[in-house]
Amino acid sequence: MKKERKLVIAGVGLIGGSFALALRKQNAFERIVGIGRSTATLVRARELGIIDEAAASVAEALEGADLVLIAAPVAQTEAILALIRPHLRPGTIVTDAGSTKTDVVAAARRALGEKIGQFVPGHPIAGREMNGPEAAMPDLYRGKKVILTPLTENAVKDVEYVGATWEACGAKIHRLTPEEHDRVFAAVSHLPHLLAYALVDDIAGKPHAELLFQYAASGFRDFTRIAASSPEMWRDITLANSAALLQELDAYLARLQSLRGHLVSGNGAAIEAVYANAQRARLNWSVSIESAEKQVRQGGES
Amino acid sequence: MKKERKLVIAGVGLIGGSFALALRKQNAFERIVGIGRSTATLVRARELGIIDEAAASVAEALEGADLVLIAAPVAQTEAILALIRPHLRPGTIVTDAGSTKTDVVAAARRALGEKIGQFVPGHPIAGREMNGPEAAMPDLYRGKKVILTPLTENAVKDVEYVGATWEACGAKIHRLTPEEHDRVFAAVSHLPHLLAYALVDDIAGKPHAELLFQYAASGFRDFTRIAASSPEMWRDITLANSAALLQELDAYLARLQSLRGHLVSGNGAAIEAVYANAQRARLNWSVSIESAEKQVRQGGES
Repeated sequence: MKKERKLVIAGVGLIGGSFALALRKQNAFERIVGIGRSTATLVRARELGIIDEAAASVAEALEGADLVLIAAPVAQTEAILALIRPHLRPGTIVTDAGSTKTDVVAAARRALGEKIGQFVPGHPIAGREMNGPEAAMPDLYRGKKVILTPLTENAVKDVEYVGATWEACGAKIHRLTPEEHDRVFAAVSHLPHLLAYALVDDIAGKPHAELLFQYAASGFRDFTRIAASSPEMWRDITLANSAALLQELDAYLARLQSLRGHLVSGNGAAIEAVYANAQRARLNWSVSIESAEKQVRQGGES
Repeated sequence: MKKERKLVIAGVGLIGGSFALALRKQNAFERIVGIGRSTATLVRARELGIIDEAAASVAEALEGADLVLIAAPVAQTEAILALIRPHLRPGTIVTDAGSTKTDVVAAARRALGEKIGQFVPGHPIAGREMNGPEAAMPDLYRGKKVILTPLTENAVKDVEYVGATWEACGAKIHRLTPEEHDRVFAAVSHLPHLLAYALVDDIAGKPHAELLFQYAASGFRDFTRIAASSPEMWRDITLANSAALLQELDAYLARLQSLRGHLVSGNGAAIEAVYANAQRARLNWSVSIESAEKQVRQGGES
């Protein structure tokens, strides 16, 4: 008799729940079980058909598991892996969905010890403004990127298995080292979050904040949308990736100081050069992103 | 015989064209004429039914005009008003749609001299990502704010007339002094534009820019959307409002330096406090904006 394929989701919210729903649709696993801190969330995930059952214990969950996805705030990764370790048998692969990778890899090495080869680090570049199992949807990863940052200890077939599982969700696999990953996301994600939070905090702290917010319009809305994200989650990311983030922040501060100089001296040509360079890059980027998304949609339909 | 009501639009693009279309729908004017630097744009505006005709000269345009709207980049305001002045008769009111007000008022005083009382400065808080007469739409100002910054030389009835005309477009009138206006928009609009331009310029200048742009996702897209705006227009605004903008930029830089300190010392509680304060303010703002927009929509339907 063929063994039942079993998936364990640690954290059945938006990210873990969408992974489960996508794989259920593909019949990639016969059994999907959830573990997590909140019983209410696990009950809800079962009602929504995300998991078949909440495991009674980590031991029970890991029994016969093929794949475990950790989809919890990054600061919890080490504790979850430490719980898993005693029950982690050869043949079970663990992956994660954390937004930072260098710290996650370090945490995994501490928590898993000699079993580190069974952990394949990953990061799906997808999300929604909502959280929790109710927000989960089978198409969340369709056409999105998933970045794997494999370890030298990983078996090639295990990395390929994790990649193929994400591909079954409709995602496109990319590979970076953990350090490359963190440097890239410090620039294009973590720094913008910090900047947006800082701007809203700055405005909210002014004596005439109410007047200011009254006249804030659509440009402000788009610029600050990411400042509505979870402060706990972003505190964790900020701390976990603080070295790369500091480097990006300092480069940006230097750029702002240079622009400030042009403002003081009234150097319109220099200001326009910066703005025009940015506009050109922004337009090129949106054209290439839109054409990539179009290819994915067409590929998905063929 | 009742005199024909006549509107002159100087700059028949998105802003001026939408004003004309809205007022035509309300039958607020019997005759709408356009003036501008580009003949092709005036021809297109006529084809689109925005204006009845392109005036052969400024003199002809101003002949019997009740209202003139200047809807051109702010740096051109003084030159346009200087062209208008010799033909500006008592009873004609001039207003504008510029994004800055202190410099526009100073330019108007220089250009109009003793006729300054006929100029009522204004700024509609509305826009689209597209420009030009093709982008004009009669509903652009529906439920949007228009800020008037009246001068001591203005007659009360003239300010009320300009306000009533914008109200006929569906807009809600607010009043600020030119200095208040510029301080508010430096914070909620001009600074975010500068920050978004600076971020994209910063990333585009890095040796691994291509890699970075490849992984930029929806948070980056929203944060940098305003960096796709016209560099010329925003250079003008940046220079025209540089004093207020510098003040906001310096306050923001101080806030970033403080956050940088928390990053260096790994002060997670302080980082979370800033992020949580920003998130709370951002959520409160979006709730109040949405409820105001809902009221406008319901008001418009009743």
